[in-house]
Amino acid sequence: MSKTPAATGEERLIAKYFAPIAKHPGALGLLDDAAMLTPPAGADLVLTKDAIVGGVHFFPDDPADAVARKALRVNLSDLAAKGATPAGFLLALALPEGVTDDWLKAFAQGLSRDADSYACPLFGGDTVRTPGPLTVSITAFGFVPQGKMVRRHGARAGDRILVTGTIGDAALGLALRKGAGPGRRWNLDNDMRTHLLGRYLLPQPRSAIAELVRAHASAAMDISDGLAGDLAKLCRVSGITAEIDVASVPLSEAARVALAAEPTLIETILAGGDDYEIVCTGPPDHSADFIAAAAKANVQATEIGRVVAGEGAPRFIGKDGKPLILQSMSYSHF
Amino acid sequence: MSKTPAATGEERLIAKYFAPIAKHPGALGLLDDAAMLTPPAGADLVLTKDAIVGGVHFFPDDPADAVARKALRVNLSDLAAKGATPAGFLLALALPEGVTDDWLKAFAQGLSRDADSYACPLFGGDTVRTPGPLTVSITAFGFVPQGKMVRRHGARAGDRILVTGTIGDAALGLALRKGAGPGRRWNLDNDMRTHLLGRYLLPQPRSAIAELVRAHASAAMDISDGLAGDLAKLCRVSGITAEIDVASVPLSEAARVALAAEPTLIETILAGGDDYEIVCTGPPDHSADFIAAAAKANVQATEIGRVVAGEGAPRFIGKDGKPLILQSMSYSHF
Repeated sequence: MSKTPAATGEERLIAKYFAPIAKHPGALGLLDDAAMLTPPAGADLVLTKDAIVGGVHFFPDDPADAVARKALRVNLSDLAAKGATPAGFLLALALPEGVTDDWLKAFAQGLSRDADSYACPLFGGDTVRTPGPLTVSITAFGFVPQGKMVRRHGARAGDRILVTGTIGDAALGLALRKGAGPGRRWNLDNDMRTHLLGRYLLPQPRSAIAELVRAHASAAMDISDGLAGDLAKLCRVSGITAEIDVASVPLSEAARVALAAEPTLIETILAGGDDYEIVCTGPPDHSADFIAAAAKANVQATEIGRVVAGEGAPRFIGKDGKPLILQSMSYSHF
Repeated sequence: MSKTPAATGEERLIAKYFAPIAKHPGALGLLDDAAMLTPPAGADLVLTKDAIVGGVHFFPDDPADAVARKALRVNLSDLAAKGATPAGFLLALALPEGVTDDWLKAFAQGLSRDADSYACPLFGGDTVRTPGPLTVSITAFGFVPQGKMVRRHGARAGDRILVTGTIGDAALGLALRKGAGPGRRWNLDNDMRTHLLGRYLLPQPRSAIAELVRAHASAAMDISDGLAGDLAKLCRVSGITAEIDVASVPLSEAARVALAAEPTLIETILAGGDDYEIVCTGPPDHSADFIAAAAKANVQATEIGRVVAGEGAPRFIGKDGKPLILQSMSYSHF
């Protein structure tokens, strides 16, 4: 036993890379078994947990800082859709042999950058070895005024359906990432490719409008597995169905160009995953206010359809007034 | 698009195996992106996160229900050591191909059993595919009265050091699990083997004495990486050091028999991992009350040494009055 109390390898790793990010006093400098914080008076705690796995949810050669930021952002996206203000997160990092110091440094820098931007500090976690792929499991927590978490349940017939941002970019980006072929076929210029690839690599959680969602939405969720499938989940839980005007679904310029070149991409756009936009429902007389207030927060919001009584999957109505037939509703790993 | 809104594979898996465990209303039947709960007035939230990986923290052929229970219990152990009452947990489950329905059923049953016993319901989580080993990442949360979380920081010179249960069983159990050889060499009978193997397979979180820890301890942590190494961490954070009387460290009958047969096992016992007992410090005049009150809750507690001023690793004093020399202070995967 040495006279100087030497830290273990895991302690050194945490002290070097992660303690500097853990700025909240309740994180205790990552020197304890647990973190603590005093919830704001009158608040409900909102908890969410999303894991991402190398080779499944990101490419093993994606930049380390992007992997970190994606892992945090998919959780921030959930909090935003629930109307919650981020308060912090815990990180479980399963590391294969051979992860370098440079990789860890870049990972921690990416995490730190987003923890700062979204005011969501690291509170604690666990670092373990794995013989499998790098896996990042994050639990994020936030607060809402008591009883005010926006749920998937709550959409009412007559409500309007709105989405933030543009739909389908990440699914097209993933297709591009898998091979250069589609890019040529779709007539994309370099900026368009970069846009789509970026949308897959790094989600843009709509934290800026969490309060607006709380103020206006009857139901909301983030779109992680595709607009069609996720809206179907919201409909099931709310006990209603929906009609979407396909022409009103907001597309980026890149997506419009690709769709013009290959019209069957409408399925990828509507049912592909990784948008991390918010889909929400609300009373018709709230739409204009929501759209205007979101715009002030630099978030595009677009009305795309209506909640209707009944059950069954949402109908996506084309320009000809007929419902589109989608082969697959949703991206699923199972 | 089908007329009946078919659930995705992941939704079916969650509905079948995990929704029945998610009994707290704030879990929303696992039908939402996030869970919510109202913190008790005057409480601090305590958060902890531990992940376990197949082939690293458990054997791939360990029973599914034991894997589930271990994953939850290592987190419950952290909450107990912090003096926190469990409130719930979130589960991220990374599943390799080929995990069967029977495995998942047994896993969920084990999880459900412990969630009930420890009054710690499932609130939500994420289920993902992995090309690697099965990985279970759990975030558990609990509550303490404001400002009352017991930390690693806080031990004072003159405090007594106490541990719950017996020390070293799990490390001996792991050695047995790795091969039958040691068992014969150590002269263990079947009951002793079963005891040690069981202590490795399934930790016993000391949730029953969380309130006592809060009432009596100046500092505490759970022993996951070995008494020597974990006590050294507590000393570092508290800015003190410690002296342990090795003869007073509580051993099970099985550990005593093995140690008599192979005296060098003292190192495995003091520095091996997976005890999941609590080590805590407290004023000398609290020891007797703590030990008596713990006994009433069916938890053995034993005074094993003293906090002393100064720095450096804790000294483990043998019967001859001389400090033991341990080759390795602690179990570490790094």
